[in-house]
Amino acid sequence: MHIPIMSIRYISQKLAQQIDEELMSASGAFSLDQLMELAGLSCAQAVARTFPPSSHKRVLVACGPGNQGGDGLVAARHLYMFNYKPTIYLPKPGSKEIYRRLLKQVENLRIPVIKSEADFEKSLKEQDVILDAIFGFSFQPPLRPPFHTVLRLIKQSKLPILSVDIPSGWSVTEGPQELRTEPDENGRSEIVETFTPEALISLTAPKEGVKGFKGKHWLGGRFVPDELDQKFELNIPPYPGVEQVVELPSPRL
Amino acid sequence: MHIPIMSIRYISQKLAQQIDEELMSASGAFSLDQLMELAGLSCAQAVARTFPPSSHKRVLVACGPGNQGGDGLVAARHLYMFNYKPTIYLPKPGSKEIYRRLLKQVENLRIPVIKSEADFEKSLKEQDVILDAIFGFSFQPPLRPPFHTVLRLIKQSKLPILSVDIPSGWSVTEGPQELRTEPDENGRSEIVETFTPEALISLTAPKEGVKGFKGKHWLGGRFVPDELDQKFELNIPPYPGVEQVVELPSPRL
Repeated sequence: MHIPIMSIRYISQKLAQQIDEELMSASGAFSLDQLMELAGLSCAQAVARTFPPSSHKRVLVACGPGNQGGDGLVAARHLYMFNYKPTIYLPKPGSKEIYRRLLKQVENLRIPVIKSEADFEKSLKEQDVILDAIFGFSFQPPLRPPFHTVLRLIKQSKLPILSVDIPSGWSVTEGPQELRTEPDENGRSEIVETFTPEALISLTAPKEGVKGFKGKHWLGGRFVPDELDQKFELNIPPYPGVEQVVELPSPRL
Repeated sequence: MHIPIMSIRYISQKLAQQIDEELMSASGAFSLDQLMELAGLSCAQAVARTFPPSSHKRVLVACGPGNQGGDGLVAARHLYMFNYKPTIYLPKPGSKEIYRRLLKQVENLRIPVIKSEADFEKSLKEQDVILDAIFGFSFQPPLRPPFHTVLRLIKQSKLPILSVDIPSGWSVTEGPQELRTEPDENGRSEIVETFTPEALISLTAPKEGVKGFKGKHWLGGRFVPDELDQKFELNIPPYPGVEQVVELPSPRL
């Protein structure tokens, strides 16, 4: 019998949040520690598959203040274990207890952690690739400081980028679109040009906003129970062997 | 310059406990959830490397009540994700909160969980390999019920076995040696024959008791910071690529 492979579902921001909540509910029983560890590990594997350490040893891991920043901290730790030279940029460190623990873990490995914009700008000249873990599936415009500068510096660097879940600055639902900063006291806001990464790793399931993404596209987060997959008709493709990532086909446009 | 590769250190029970405590101390900053997730993942990878799912689809995961049982529950979940058909045997479920969560996670995947000896005995006839996660580096003889029967049934099954950290029943320090049950009210105890597994995965660092082990020997737990490695002169060998396991050389006896 020939079973046709159904296309994977691109999910909404709301459904992404719902899946996350179900995984961590009393019935899903996962802890944030577990999910973040596996998500971050899959991000590090996606970097390794796309940009091998032989040619892209220095990875700038840009981490936002939320859970995606946490994934980035875990990824940086695993990248170090995979023989990369990661540097972490934290424009605005998260305040959650888990974030502080993950930060301590990378500090124990003596992974440099940059906090100022000036150091970030300087450091970008000495990197081979950027892992963009700034905004995740909870992102809502407009852009607040200091992130307009962060996104601009990343774009200007012309370094290859691998984004986690949604390229930072893109609409989770609509994809690349006009991005504005928060209006100032005079009601003025500026437009911030977004970047298009070379590669992307979608966690759990890809989001609607990356439907047209033409670069290398990985799926990670190999922990979704069949029941959840079926309930939300995600059509998650089979992962190969013991891998934590699977490549998604390019969209036919 | 030629740098000789130092032999890995076989550590004592006491040092194994100390390393575990340091990893989870305020300065180590790891949570038990994280370490168990990575340890269990490496156990599942060791099974996949030794007994591929094409020839050894059915894995009986025997879990003790302690942290090693928790590693086993995590491994069973990843084995399911790796296309194995795991069955879990819990002679004595652990009481920790994390144990209950890990158990719920495998139940959500509809992985069968066996609790009675009779069902275990019956199930052994329908398995291809046993993942032995009963006793870990905290094991102290004598053997208490129901584990004398459990070990006997595993030995009688003649199935290939992959043990985690220390083959269940072996002395963590001395290796295979005469194992006795706890004396009954008349002061009588019986000798329980131990088994020798085909393969072994040592977590973090191998224990003194497996120094003479001649089967396939994996190291897992790719999370030990260099500082800890150096402090205790563990001489952990480099892991290849993005793998969570590395094969250790056979001992020269």
